[in-house]
Amino acid sequence: MSLLVQKYGGTSVGSVERIQAVAERVEAARVAGHSIVVVVSAMSGETDRLLNLARAIKNPPPSRELDAVLATGEQVTIGLLAMALLARGVDAVSYTGGQVRILTDSAFNKARILDIDASNVHTELKAGKVVVIAGFQGIDDQGNVTTLGRGGSDTTAVAMAAALKADECQIYTDVDGVYTTDPRIVPEARRLDRITYEEMLEMASLGAKVLQIRSVEFASKYQVTLRVLSSFVDGPGTLITTEENIMEAALISGVTLNRDEAKLTIVGVPDRPGVASTILGPIADANIEVDMIVQNSGADGAADFTFTVHRNEYDQALAICQQTNLEMKARAVQGDKRIVKVSIVGVGMRSHAGIASRTFRALAAEGINIQMISTSEIKISVVIDEKYGELAVRTLHAEFGLAEQV
Amino acid sequence: MSLLVQKYGGTSVGSVERIQAVAERVEAARVAGHSIVVVVSAMSGETDRLLNLARAIKNPPPSRELDAVLATGEQVTIGLLAMALLARGVDAVSYTGGQVRILTDSAFNKARILDIDASNVHTELKAGKVVVIAGFQGIDDQGNVTTLGRGGSDTTAVAMAAALKADECQIYTDVDGVYTTDPRIVPEARRLDRITYEEMLEMASLGAKVLQIRSVEFASKYQVTLRVLSSFVDGPGTLITTEENIMEAALISGVTLNRDEAKLTIVGVPDRPGVASTILGPIADANIEVDMIVQNSGADGAADFTFTVHRNEYDQALAICQQTNLEMKARAVQGDKRIVKVSIVGVGMRSHAGIASRTFRALAAEGINIQMISTSEIKISVVIDEKYGELAVRTLHAEFGLAEQV
Repeated sequence: MSLLVQKYGGTSVGSVERIQAVAERVEAARVAGHSIVVVVSAMSGETDRLLNLARAIKNPPPSRELDAVLATGEQVTIGLLAMALLARGVDAVSYTGGQVRILTDSAFNKARILDIDASNVHTELKAGKVVVIAGFQGIDDQGNVTTLGRGGSDTTAVAMAAALKADECQIYTDVDGVYTTDPRIVPEARRLDRITYEEMLEMASLGAKVLQIRSVEFASKYQVTLRVLSSFVDGPGTLITTEENIMEAALISGVTLNRDEAKLTIVGVPDRPGVASTILGPIADANIEVDMIVQNSGADGAADFTFTVHRNEYDQALAICQQTNLEMKARAVQGDKRIVKVSIVGVGMRSHAGIASRTFRALAAEGINIQMISTSEIKISVVIDEKYGELAVRTLHAEFGLAEQV
Repeated sequence: MSLLVQKYGGTSVGSVERIQAVAERVEAARVAGHSIVVVVSAMSGETDRLLNLARAIKNPPPSRELDAVLATGEQVTIGLLAMALLARGVDAVSYTGGQVRILTDSAFNKARILDIDASNVHTELKAGKVVVIAGFQGIDDQGNVTTLGRGGSDTTAVAMAAALKADECQIYTDVDGVYTTDPRIVPEARRLDRITYEEMLEMASLGAKVLQIRSVEFASKYQVTLRVLSSFVDGPGTLITTEENIMEAALISGVTLNRDEAKLTIVGVPDRPGVASTILGPIADANIEVDMIVQNSGADGAADFTFTVHRNEYDQALAICQQTNLEMKARAVQGDKRIVKVSIVGVGMRSHAGIASRTFRALAAEGINIQMISTSEIKISVVIDEKYGELAVRTLHAEFGLAEQV
């Protein structure tokens, strides 16, 4: 008898048939004796349809009114899913974000949850009902409808699980868990049984798109046990939890490949204090996010300053750097869009030395030149020529034995 | 400087272009110095789309959840219209039924408005904003979303006008007012400048589909001045108000033709007390609504009992009558679906004798046989063979000079 929060995304509720399938899955959990809260997204395509209607009226759409329009997508799904449950004889009731009272700030389109009054939901659960809650939305203290931004339904699910002190927050999606790496690159990639919040955060920020970063942060903060599962295939999925709940941490949990970045180098930068902010200040002013940063001081009193940005912002960043180059009298600006970032992630590397050198040696053995390196406590990232991306992933996946069950 | 409530139906907001046109019309009223509350329906087709989704899940759909789903239709429109107004530089804000606090009972799918807290709307109006309100919906005292049933947006508009003590409630539709009769039958039919609530109620109940009966009742009860206008063509429309506001009442205001009824006769009914309830009791038990009722007592101690029902319920009513016929040992049951009801409506007939005989004489002169007659204080209805329907309408329209301006 556990209290489970189950979250189903847009693809999982994308048609009447799929909504019926979700109802069947929820019923099975009820029959198994669990109390169930379901959080759902809008049916796939619906949010885009509404967004396009709004944009046809005014682009960009006024934010308060856009939220009033977008929130209807999830409201339709909760009603339909509650109907499907009632049709199966499972007592159920739908709640919008406002009806639960998911209180948010008033930052329309990207609101943050401030508080959840779960008393209504508790009462319904006690009466034996499945409570179907609209994800992605809330209400501010003025009674305005707000939305949490794309992917906000994951956040709603985790926040509800925290507020209800649920035993588990299950995120149903179109993959059956978190993998050691992309199975399209490495066929022997293995589904992880367990992974820590920190590792999941690194994997998500490196481009593994299973979960929204924000929902993982939320889960970590409130110690909500997450599980990623498939809506279409039965299976245990991947549990995301605290390090203490994972008996024997793997050295390395996963290898990721990020193709979204591009590299910029200013060559011959005067080697003096304040150079980094002179270069990156104008980039930040243009709202361009910088990922990796490397500076090499040369023997001649000049340095090379290299950083990466998202490829979509490369052209803009390049123009800014050329201006900066002139102003600071550096030697030249070089740019390269044909790079990838390969990373290994694992809490085990905290207590094991030599992971970095093993990584570099393995890549060198395949003739892969490393252009940039960046490390954190539980991650090592390298930037390499994009043509070696898949080879590097396969090499590191094999080097650290990720295909074998730990 | 008046306070106007404007209501636009589904056709008037059926596309992005039409929503822009409504915004233009609202802006014109603002520029003219009026305070404006707009009540809108779902975009045409949207309510049916949602209803079909729900029915595909469970038919009939559970009522509470159906309301949660259906209410989204109007919520989309209010957001889009508010955006269109903001895009034109007209300050505007959207409100759902729940956000206004249109309090209803909990009769899902056909809720009744109990109370409206108009304080939010007053505040917004005072701040110079156009308030765009979702029609057709409310909220019960538990916070559940309710809907008022089809055509409920008219009721919302009238109720808002009453709560706000608006100067006028303008119902924008696809016709430019209320006509003396259907212009497709009588080309010289004339738009009425003014008509009383009572006349409008009779006309609506007789099948003139300009306004919902319920909204006219509401307007009459709270003395809300209504105006029916076209969303597509400029014009004064038709004002619907109290008799005192109409200087010189016309003898007859309109002629209506109702093709939706069918006639049933039980022949040779024993002429004794209780017969009517013996016949109509089982009909009422089957939830079949009866319109006209006529009983002729014959000289032989037996009577013919005739009544009309909606054509859709004719077959069911016929089967019930055949059973009753056996039980009460009457002579026979006769039915006829090929009839129509033609009516004349006018408050003027209260103070003028001889309207009925003029009606019957005019029809007789055209060789039209009258099968049933029913009268009220301001209405005379006759049932005739359906093949004479249009002729009867044209005859009475001419007889009472309705084409001429009074």
